[in-house]
Amino acid sequence: MLPIAPVTILKLSGEEASEQPDLLAVEEPLEIRLGFGPPDERQQRSLSVTMRTPGHDEDLALGFLLTEGIIYAPSQLLSLKHCTDAGRTEAGNIIRAELRPDVPVDWIRLQRNFYTSSSCGVCGKASIEAVYAVACPVLPTPEPWLSADLLGRLPAQLRQHQAVFAHTGGLHAAALFDQTGKIVLLREDVGRHNALDKLLGAAARHGWWSLHRYGLLLSGRISFELVQKSLAAGLPALVAMGAPSSLAVQLAESVGQTLVGFLREGRMNVYSGAGRVVVYLNQNLQDY
Amino acid sequence: MLPIAPVTILKLSGEEASEQPDLLAVEEPLEIRLGFGPPDERQQRSLSVTMRTPGHDEDLALGFLLTEGIIYAPSQLLSLKHCTDAGRTEAGNIIRAELRPDVPVDWIRLQRNFYTSSSCGVCGKASIEAVYAVACPVLPTPEPWLSADLLGRLPAQLRQHQAVFAHTGGLHAAALFDQTGKIVLLREDVGRHNALDKLLGAAARHGWWSLHRYGLLLSGRISFELVQKSLAAGLPALVAMGAPSSLAVQLAESVGQTLVGFLREGRMNVYSGAGRVVVYLNQNLQDY
Repeated sequence: MLPIAPVTILKLSGEEASEQPDLLAVEEPLEIRLGFGPPDERQQRSLSVTMRTPGHDEDLALGFLLTEGIIYAPSQLLSLKHCTDAGRTEAGNIIRAELRPDVPVDWIRLQRNFYTSSSCGVCGKASIEAVYAVACPVLPTPEPWLSADLLGRLPAQLRQHQAVFAHTGGLHAAALFDQTGKIVLLREDVGRHNALDKLLGAAARHGWWSLHRYGLLLSGRISFELVQKSLAAGLPALVAMGAPSSLAVQLAESVGQTLVGFLREGRMNVYSGAGRVVVYLNQNLQDY
Repeated sequence: MLPIAPVTILKLSGEEASEQPDLLAVEEPLEIRLGFGPPDERQQRSLSVTMRTPGHDEDLALGFLLTEGIIYAPSQLLSLKHCTDAGRTEAGNIIRAELRPDVPVDWIRLQRNFYTSSSCGVCGKASIEAVYAVACPVLPTPEPWLSADLLGRLPAQLRQHQAVFAHTGGLHAAALFDQTGKIVLLREDVGRHNALDKLLGAAARHGWWSLHRYGLLLSGRISFELVQKSLAAGLPALVAMGAPSSLAVQLAESVGQTLVGFLREGRMNVYSGAGRVVVYLNQNLQDY
């Protein structure tokens, strides 16, 4: 089974808007647990939680253990098995790696180096609930202000602003645009999370927090964590050149945020929050 | 000052090879430290280390604090200042955020959620030394086997193999190719680190560990951490469709790994380890 999820999107192309079926790459958290230590002092601990595309989880866990220096050879591993916590719904999202009893584990170093599990469960639904638990995102009531024309002019502005990108081709960009569609702030970084943190920190330092009156533009793809960060800033709209993941769309949808992907001059896909998008039909109606 | 680093690369275009100056996006670690607690119990702790493009560090730190729920409003912050540890060379790579004394900090939650500092210092050099400290990478002696023709055929094979990508456009891919240039294993994920971990875990489960006889192909950009993971697997060559960061090139160079970026049919840039690349000049010489 391919890790893809079917959705219905609003496709804007030139002045035409139509509902169409589409497919998204699935994103779900995976918790890796470690069983280690000698038989009489056997321990189990949560090692890491990472957002991933479901499938090949055994490969992911083994690759992680090897490339992060937790084990040095595949033979140090006894077994890899999916498991669940009693009464939870995270089937398939927890994997347990059993190490040979003689493999030394520096638990102090591991605790210092990896993102470890929260107590909220490990599934897409729990991930979304965890966002609400930290701070319940409240967005302004949707009114149509994102026209295909306004959005279609963003990619060219982004290219103009990306001074470093022009030189190296190596950076992700995150930008804020105002309600006239003008890019007013931009930050870049090798990491897309960093680019967004830089942008939102700069906006806060400008005294713009929270950002209800702006839209967010991203040069790449839209992951769950990028939507989470944009909601922490109160951003009502997130548009990107790349594709969103399934969990990114679910989170945006749950709070009514407008999510636009595959943004090009003249066409784009609307995944959620279409109430903020001015479609041709609306424009026609307004003409009467 | 733009965060770019000048390098000399070997540019292959068709059958021509030439040395040319080029520019890379700089990548360096940033440690965020937190000063918190009431005046009589004031604490300082390391909160997070992230690989980032230097510049706008105050924005990055403030954005991180806000979007990760450590503070809820910019006014909870007293100051943001770069600082250094005595006798260390990480100038500019440590930033300290001073919180107001009345801001509650759940240190237990923070420790569980973020990558925190190792004791090895925070600069590009220390990051490279940390890789050597975990396991000193040893690669096979360079012999020319990567021809422009062999490499140029990889992108089309990658597209063929990317079944999910064809449907959703949303996934990163990592693939192994053998010495004839054939892709023999491929994994995909929403996260590029996950895609690589899945690929290397799958190879280990096939009994191929370590991977001295293969090359690694990545669909995106090359960061420091991707080079680190490829070296843990003993991969002598890493080629990618995107650009490498400066620190990625430094790490590859330090251990003699071949790094190729901007791979297209017919042209590519060689950043390090050119001894494994068959250039036209060599081919000519071999004809004699």
